[in-house]
Amino acid sequence: MRAVDIIIKKRDKGQLTAQEIEFFVRGFTNGEIPDYQASAFAMAVMLNGMTPFETTDLTLAMARSGQVLDLSKIVDIAVDKHSSGGVGDKTSIAVMPMVAACGLPVGKMSGRGLGFSGGTLDKLESIPGYRVNLTTDEFKAQLKEKGIVLTGQSLDLAPADGKMYALRDVTGTVPSMPLIASSIMCKKLAAGAQAIVLDVKVGLGAFMETLEDGRELAELMVDIGHLAGRKTVALLSDMNQPLGSAVGNTLEMVEAIETLRGGGPADFVEHCLHVAAHVLLLGGRAKDIDEGRAMAQKSIADGSAFEMLRVLVKAQGGDVSYVDDISRFTPAKFIEAVKAPRTGFISQVHARIVGEASVALGAGRAKKGDPIDHAVGFLVLKKVGDSVQEGEPMCEIHANDKEKLREAHEAILSAFQISEEPVPPLPLFYE
Amino acid sequence: MRAVDIIIKKRDKGQLTAQEIEFFVRGFTNGEIPDYQASAFAMAVMLNGMTPFETTDLTLAMARSGQVLDLSKIVDIAVDKHSSGGVGDKTSIAVMPMVAACGLPVGKMSGRGLGFSGGTLDKLESIPGYRVNLTTDEFKAQLKEKGIVLTGQSLDLAPADGKMYALRDVTGTVPSMPLIASSIMCKKLAAGAQAIVLDVKVGLGAFMETLEDGRELAELMVDIGHLAGRKTVALLSDMNQPLGSAVGNTLEMVEAIETLRGGGPADFVEHCLHVAAHVLLLGGRAKDIDEGRAMAQKSIADGSAFEMLRVLVKAQGGDVSYVDDISRFTPAKFIEAVKAPRTGFISQVHARIVGEASVALGAGRAKKGDPIDHAVGFLVLKKVGDSVQEGEPMCEIHANDKEKLREAHEAILSAFQISEEPVPPLPLFYE
Repeated sequence: MRAVDIIIKKRDKGQLTAQEIEFFVRGFTNGEIPDYQASAFAMAVMLNGMTPFETTDLTLAMARSGQVLDLSKIVDIAVDKHSSGGVGDKTSIAVMPMVAACGLPVGKMSGRGLGFSGGTLDKLESIPGYRVNLTTDEFKAQLKEKGIVLTGQSLDLAPADGKMYALRDVTGTVPSMPLIASSIMCKKLAAGAQAIVLDVKVGLGAFMETLEDGRELAELMVDIGHLAGRKTVALLSDMNQPLGSAVGNTLEMVEAIETLRGGGPADFVEHCLHVAAHVLLLGGRAKDIDEGRAMAQKSIADGSAFEMLRVLVKAQGGDVSYVDDISRFTPAKFIEAVKAPRTGFISQVHARIVGEASVALGAGRAKKGDPIDHAVGFLVLKKVGDSVQEGEPMCEIHANDKEKLREAHEAILSAFQISEEPVPPLPLFYE
Repeated sequence: MRAVDIIIKKRDKGQLTAQEIEFFVRGFTNGEIPDYQASAFAMAVMLNGMTPFETTDLTLAMARSGQVLDLSKIVDIAVDKHSSGGVGDKTSIAVMPMVAACGLPVGKMSGRGLGFSGGTLDKLESIPGYRVNLTTDEFKAQLKEKGIVLTGQSLDLAPADGKMYALRDVTGTVPSMPLIASSIMCKKLAAGAQAIVLDVKVGLGAFMETLEDGRELAELMVDIGHLAGRKTVALLSDMNQPLGSAVGNTLEMVEAIETLRGGGPADFVEHCLHVAAHVLLLGGRAKDIDEGRAMAQKSIADGSAFEMLRVLVKAQGGDVSYVDDISRFTPAKFIEAVKAPRTGFISQVHARIVGEASVALGAGRAKKGDPIDHAVGFLVLKKVGDSVQEGEPMCEIHANDKEKLREAHEAILSAFQISEEPVPPLPLFYE
C-alpha cells in the first residue's frame, strides 16, 4: 500500500477502505507519511467528501492513534457530552454536577478557548487551585470515587487529530464536514465514551452558521457514533446570541454556580435542563426526557447538584470557598453599562461580535498559549425579543483597562440591534 | 498576503490574481511556503482547475523562478520545438538540423527518458563524446557560431517547476491540465523561446491517451503561449504505435542519421517534414507550410541537413565518425526476429507495451538516475495497416541478455494484434 495511491483514490472520488484509512492515519501519526501527503489528502477529502462509513473509519483510526481509555470497569456506562463551541457556553459546568447528583457518573475532558469561542477549562481555572491536568490514573480514580471529573485532554489522546488539525489550519482544509466530525468524535471515542450527547451550536457565534450546516454535522456525528457502536444523540441549539447572560471566565463560572443554586438566567437554566435530561436518558437513569428533566430540576432544588460541584472542585484541588461565596472572586477594575441608544425591541445580540470583543478585552486568546484575564467579560442584560427603553442598560462591561473598555463599548453597541417593531425571542433549540 | 488564503481562494473555486500566483510560486521556490501548503494548493488546482489566464500567470511565475535566457541579441527569433513524449520519437534529432540548414538558428534544451517514454539526450549520448551538459554561455556561443544546439536543461532554469513536479509525483497531482501545461511551457519561456511548435502526442503510448485530452492540453498551451506574447502552434500527432521503426537509443540515433541522408521509414520522414515546415513557418523562414516543407525536403536532398548534424555533433564534442559510418555503433549481442503468428493485417502495435518492453531490455529508466544500455531496443518492421504472412518478421529485438530477450519476445507478441480483415493505417497527425 502506498500513500500516494490512497490520495489518488480520494482525488478520483473513490471510496476508501478501512485498511487504507488505517494505513494513512497510522503512517501520518508515526511520521512515515509526510505532511505534504497528508495536506493533499485533506484537500481531496475537503473537495470530494467522504461517506459516513469512511468518516467512521477515519474517526476510529484517529481514536486508535494513541491511548484509548477503557472505563468499562469503572462505570456501567461512560456518558460524554460535547458542545461544538460558542459564546457564553458554560453548560458543562452546570450540567455535569446535575447528572452526577442524579447518580450517573460523568468524567469529561474539555478544551481551552480559542478565537471567539470560550473554553470550559479556562472558566474552571477562575477558581484558585483548580487542576485541569489530571493524569489518566487520577481521572479514573476520581471518576470511581467521586462520580464526577472535569479536566483537560491528556496529551496522548488521539495524537493524529492534533497533528492533523494543525496541518488543516494552515492548508485551507478546516471547513470539511468529515474532517470536523471525525476530529470531534475521535476524541470522544478515545476518552472511552459509550454514550454521547452532542450539542451542536448553530448561528452567528457558532462554527456552523446555518441550520443546514449544523444539521449536516449533527447527522454525520450521530451516524459515526452509531456505526462505531455508541449510543449517540445530537441537539441543535441556537448560538446567534450568547447563551445566558455571562461571557468571560469568572463571570461564567459565577453564572454556573448561581444556576446550580437555583438562580441563573432563564434561557441558560432551560438549556441546561434539556441537555441534562438527554444525558440522563442516554445514560439509562431516566426512562424519558420528561423524567430526566424532572430529575435534573430536583437535583437543583434539593441542593444535591450544587453539593456535587463542591465535591468536584475539592477533588481537583480548587478553593471551594469561592463556590460557597462568589464575592471572593476578584472583580474587574472597571464595570460600565452599555445603554440602549433608543427605545424598541432587541432584534440582535451578535454572538460573534460579543465573543470577539471578549477576546479583545483579554478574556480569550487570539492564538494558542496566549495568557488570559479571568475577570473581564460581559453580562448581557437584554436578549433578542426583550423590550428596552432609551438609556436602559443592555449590557455590562467588566474590564481592567480603560482603552479596552472604550473599544468594548463600541463593539457591544454594534452587536446590539434595536427594532421599532416587536421581535419574537430566538428559540433555544431547533430540533 | 498569506499562503493559506491563496489556497482557500482556489479551494472555493476563486480566480487567483497574478500577484497571488507570483507570491505563492516565489515563496515555494525560496522555501518560505512549505511543501504541505504547496501540495494542498496543487490538489485544489487539480480538482477545481485554473483559467488560461491563471495558468499563464503560473507559467510566467515559474519561468521567472530562476534564470531566464535572453537570446534576442543572438538570433532574430528564438524558435523552440517541444514534443510531449512518446515511443520512438527521435524527431528533434532529425528536424533541428533540417531547419538549421534552412538558415533558421535553433537552440534546444531536451530531457532524458523516464518510464516508457524515451529522451533525446539519451539518444544523442549514443555517440561517444557527445556533451549534453553545456553551460549557458556555451549554449549562447554555439547558437551564435554554429546556428544549432541540442543539449540538456541547465540546472537553474525554472527551479520552481522541478520542485513542484517532485511534489506532484508523490501527492497525486500529476494529471492536471493547468499543472502539466504550465510545467512544459515555463521551461520553454525560461529558455528564451519567442516562437514554439508543440508536438502533442495522443494515444496508447502518450501521456494524453485520448484525442480530447490531447486537444485540451494543446489548446491550453497555445493559449498560454499567446497570452505570454509568444508565437505558438500545436500539432496533434499519433502515438498509438511507435513513431518510425526504431525504439532504443542507438537504433533511434541511426534512424535519425539515415533520415537526414535521405532514407528512414516513410512515416517518420513525413512526420519530420511536417514538423520542420511548421518550425520554418513560425520562425519566419517560410511563407507557408508548403514552402517550409519544400525547404526541409531540399535540405535533405542537397545534403545540407546531414552536414548540419555533423556540425552539431562536432561542436558538442561527439565523435563524428559515427555519423559518417553507422557501422561504428556497437551492436547488441543478440538480434532476434519476432515472427507473425498468423497471416493477416496489423491492427495494433501497442506503443506503451513496446515502450515498457524497451525499458525492461535496459534502454530506459524505471527511476531517475538508473543506468541505461544504449544498444538495446527494437526495430518495428510492420505498422498498423500493413499485411503480414505467417512467419514473416514483424519486429527485430536487439538485446544484451538472453533472459531479457525472451521476456521482450513475449511482450512484443502481446503488443501486436493481427486482424483477418484489412485495417486502415493510423493517421500521422490528427488536426
